[in-house]
Amino acid sequence: QAEGGSVAAAPAAGAAVYDTLEVTTEDGITTIKLNRPDKKNAITTEMYDHIIAALESAAKDDSVLTVVTGAGDFYCSGNDLSNFTKIPEGGVEEMASRAGDLLRKYVRAYIDFPKPLVAVVNGPAVGVSVTVMGLFDLVYATERATFHTPFSQLGQSAEGCSSYTFPKIMGAAKANEMLLFNKKLTATQACELGLVTEVFPDSSFQSEVWTRLKEYAKLPPNSLALSKQLIRSVEKERLYAVNDAEVERLKERWLSDECMNAIMGFFQAKSKL
Amino acid sequence: QAEGGSVAAAPAAGAAVYDTLEVTTEDGITTIKLNRPDKKNAITTEMYDHIIAALESAAKDDSVLTVVTGAGDFYCSGNDLSNFTKIPEGGVEEMASRAGDLLRKYVRAYIDFPKPLVAVVNGPAVGVSVTVMGLFDLVYATERATFHTPFSQLGQSAEGCSSYTFPKIMGAAKANEMLLFNKKLTATQACELGLVTEVFPDSSFQSEVWTRLKEYAKLPPNSLALSKQLIRSVEKERLYAVNDAEVERLKERWLSDECMNAIMGFFQAKSKL
Amino acid sequence: QAEGGSVAAAPAAGAAVYDTLEVTTEDGITTIKLNRPDKKNAITTEMYDHIIAALESAAKDDSVLTVVTGAGDFYCSGNDLSNFTKIPEGGVEEMASRAGDLLRKYVRAYIDFPKPLVAVVNGPAVGVSVTVMGLFDLVYATERATFHTPFSQLGQSAEGCSSYTFPKIMGAAKANEMLLFNKKLTATQACELGLVTEVFPDSSFQSEVWTRLKEYAKLPPNSLALSKQLIRSVEKERLYAVNDAEVERLKERWLSDECMNAIMGFFQAKSKL
Repeated sequence: QAEGGSVAAAPAAGAAVYDTLEVTTEDGITTIKLNRPDKKNAITTEMYDHIIAALESAAKDDSVLTVVTGAGDFYCSGNDLSNFTKIPEGGVEEMASRAGDLLRKYVRAYIDFPKPLVAVVNGPAVGVSVTVMGLFDLVYATERATFHTPFSQLGQSAEGCSSYTFPKIMGAAKANEMLLFNKKLTATQACELGLVTEVFPDSSFQSEVWTRLKEYAKLPPNSLALSKQLIRSVEKERLYAVNDAEVERLKERWLSDECMNAIMGFFQAKSKL
Repeated sequence: QAEGGSVAAAPAAGAAVYDTLEVTTEDGITTIKLNRPDKKNAITTEMYDHIIAALESAAKDDSVLTVVTGAGDFYCSGNDLSNFTKIPEGGVEEMASRAGDLLRKYVRAYIDFPKPLVAVVNGPAVGVSVTVMGLFDLVYATERATFHTPFSQLGQSAEGCSSYTFPKIMGAAKANEMLLFNKKLTATQACELGLVTEVFPDSSFQSEVWTRLKEYAKLPPNSLALSKQLIRSVEKERLYAVNDAEVERLKERWLSDECMNAIMGFFQAKSKL
Repeated sequence: QAEGGSVAAAPAAGAAVYDTLEVTTEDGITTIKLNRPDKKNAITTEMYDHIIAALESAAKDDSVLTVVTGAGDFYCSGNDLSNFTKIPEGGVEEMASRAGDLLRKYVRAYIDFPKPLVAVVNGPAVGVSVTVMGLFDLVYATERATFHTPFSQLGQSAEGCSSYTFPKIMGAAKANEMLLFNKKLTATQACELGLVTEVFPDSSFQSEVWTRLKEYAKLPPNSLALSKQLIRSVEKERLYAVNDAEVERLKERWLSDECMNAIMGFFQAKSKL
């Protein structure tokens, strides 16, 4: 009952059903809930496609707001590193090329989203689930949430337009501790730096957030959508260019020794547990 | 006596006199005081023209700083909604077109202002009086001040370049609660988010602010003006484009059912009081 | 011993030796220490050249991070005003032209620096040493540090890309108190506004900062460098243009009566001590 917007709601008639997501529409709010709680909602290749499809569908439905949230205790642990272990026939170059194309398309779905988009961050957030937050219109977080982008640790580099949005939001001196040096922020720190709109006690998080969102969903829908598009239009071309540059850099990085060694190290450490 | 810069000063010789404004020059400071305290300094069509003229005049006089403030307990309650009730012969399209042209010109007067421009926010501020604050060089506020931009509530959308300046100042996650969801900020909140330079106790607000401004007005005037123009030049073209886009969107909004219904509701609620 | 990264390290073989700087490389960190403590590390014409050369050298060496810091109790007192007293044969116009060219080249060395660049602010910082901080990737400060850019007091205008980076970092309402009105920030204030990454107690400043930096220097070097370049690339062209515009304005300012009188006043006040 605590999770108002997404409890007891059946999929809308004709809505697609995804095995990695739970998508519901109620009270003018479409909720896309990442639904791999046993994997901390890590995003597989298939799940990127599902989220893109769910965003495209929400863009066209008659809801006023769209929410992204996670099932269970985690919001999202980011890119599922097992994605790197499925090498196609074309080898690692082919893998990097496909992964780059998918990532570019994924981030564009956020850039282009035409209605207010809200992150309801129900727990720790990692990697790409954090970097795209600069493209959301509101970010509400439980006090239990953390924000972590350990790119350089994995030999990689920033995506989700964070190389542009994070310095814009918090200034370079703060953003670089996250983007270059793997600093993990608490919810309160992320809120002070402007990445998060507001932090709530964990015990009342769901009820407070959904009460507020249901009120927001009663506002004039066209005014909300057109205002959001107006704000986004100022930097849309810039965001496309940043997304492209980030993806190109990552495709190089994924083929680097630094990255391959880091990911191999990750799986070796895991296999020893 | 507390209002140092604007008390007991006669209009400069040859200065225009406006029935909606009190304009004075003293100690190197030209003060434009919105002067409709019985209407909470709401801006009528005529008053937009007066403010534009007063800014153009201040730009050329020999003052070092220019201040905008309000008479009475309010800073400014924004656009006088009665502006929407004066339908010209050309109908509502003509009204929207004229209002758009006026707004564009009004905001450009702030973008182009060539000297340091200071908002002395003596009380609550609403709508366009808040959105143009991102174009001021300093914003001093009494602790009694509030900052409110209820656009979507009225079926409208952001102006005053706030769709660009607010996300730049405070990040999208904070800005959107104001611009999309009508959140009213206290002076302290607005200061923490960077919209306000500094907040003062109401009892000492006028004396503290004017003491400081008089000191600032003794600095080398050309250095101040040229430094301000240097800072503004970085984003002047961007600001023009944002202003144009905002005005175009608003002209559409003003003709929408959402906006007309919201404004009709406003006057119906008022007539029942 | 407290200053880990720069104590007891001999200059690398083949490294240039500068009489105004102490440059060392240890633990993957190249440290450029401003070394005129009796002059509060004020930057002479010769020293600008030395810093440019040291940055160019650090860009190419095999260190992972580069640090700028100061010897003694001051970080840096900014431009050595005695630079204005060495009038070449071509007169003051020639002096302004040369100083402008040098400043442009100096600031470009920061814009173009290809690895993470860290300011270890060991004490008060003034003028150009503050304005270029918006071009660093991390800024760590002792609680004793202050940040002061008294341009208009000296009849001058902003440089170091601060006319762009400061409003971006902290919003115009905060930035202008520094850039136009000579407000001196404490380390804590500068940190709250995003100019400084983190503030440390003076007693543990050196040990805490160097411990952290040595950890950071163990991260994959290419990932760090390429991530930093990615973040910088978003605004590199903008930074070049801002640097050029600032230098042009300053060259005019240096020839103005306001500036000449202010600098003359500075030396007269000094000679009376």
